[in-house]
Amino acid sequence: MIKLYYSPGSCALASHIALEEAGADYEAVRIDFGSDEQKKPDFLAINPKGRVPALVSDKGILTETPAILVFISQTYSASSLAPVNDPWALAQAQAFNSYLCATVHVAHAHGGRGHRWANQETSFEDMRQKVPQTVGDCFTLIENDYVKGPWVLGDTYSICDMYLYTVSRWLERDRVDISRFPKVKAQFEAIEKRPTVARVLENHFAD
Amino acid sequence: MIKLYYSPGSCALASHIALEEAGADYEAVRIDFGSDEQKKPDFLAINPKGRVPALVSDKGILTETPAILVFISQTYSASSLAPVNDPWALAQAQAFNSYLCATVHVAHAHGGRGHRWANQETSFEDMRQKVPQTVGDCFTLIENDYVKGPWVLGDTYSICDMYLYTVSRWLERDRVDISRFPKVKAQFEAIEKRPTVARVLENHFAD
Repeated sequence: MIKLYYSPGSCALASHIALEEAGADYEAVRIDFGSDEQKKPDFLAINPKGRVPALVSDKGILTETPAILVFISQTYSASSLAPVNDPWALAQAQAFNSYLCATVHVAHAHGGRGHRWANQETSFEDMRQKVPQTVGDCFTLIENDYVKGPWVLGDTYSICDMYLYTVSRWLERDRVDISRFPKVKAQFEAIEKRPTVARVLENHFAD
Repeated sequence: MIKLYYSPGSCALASHIALEEAGADYEAVRIDFGSDEQKKPDFLAINPKGRVPALVSDKGILTETPAILVFISQTYSASSLAPVNDPWALAQAQAFNSYLCATVHVAHAHGGRGHRWANQETSFEDMRQKVPQTVGDCFTLIENDYVKGPWVLGDTYSICDMYLYTVSRWLERDRVDISRFPKVKAQFEAIEKRPTVARVLENHFAD
């Protein structure tokens, strides 16, 4: 059985939704960031990066959201979570996921994790101040150039929607009003209406 | 014919090598970052992010290195640039590429592009100071947990090697001594001995 290591509300939520949508036999294992469990030897043995998500299968350990999402899509291909049989369409989905991972998530992370890239409290504050602008710029691009509507890739719900929803959940903390982005907002509301997603959220955020 | 838009020495080098290794019919189009060509309307029409690489085919435009590398591998599958027929093995390759894209490239970028995430010159300097540590930590993890040797994935040369080589080329600028990482250093020297790579470098850096 697959195990997914996650922290509530982290980017691991996207993989959590994907496993549920795939109908996979999996267990979600919560890692307590409050007590720095991700930096302790037991978890570092699973993921030496000390981050979530980490997916453990009988084949080994897999990290990084874009990799996990495509792996789930290919493994449970009957669930049609991504256009896995069309290299160009898959590449477009991957480009979107890569943008979320390397640009949008990184912009967001400067709000609370400036210590990753600098040492001074004044720098952290400077970074925090800029987050509404950088994340807002990212979502302007997502709204104008990526989301075809109603879903990211158009008529077909996909891993891109699971990942975008996960990142859009951070907008309020990032002091960016989702109403500025009508297609993103409609996508956010539509995905929350899915029973599968509601089921994941209940489990994901359970005490 | 495929067009690859690139800037010399940028992460677009990985895609440039992949196209050459694939035996693709392509043209490499140089974008002059010195004159901010990437921010001008002609290029923004191709990639609204104002970044390279951007790959243009008869199907449209594709951005983001991890997406481009897998697309090339799937399209020219006879060249065996990635384990495209084994979802788990492909996922491991993707996890590595995703780490390079979202963590290593980002750590490096704080050396010269701090303005992306902050506003004050003091913050930029603070970020610059930390680059040897953050990039050094990334490469320690790459050396210990990723590179199987002689290539990233073991005996088989792949897109992961093209991407790692591209990022390893930045180590000197990042004030990190590649000699600290024997497997990375051996991989770096091995890839430069490939005639295909030598051919790309000559074209990529030509005046």
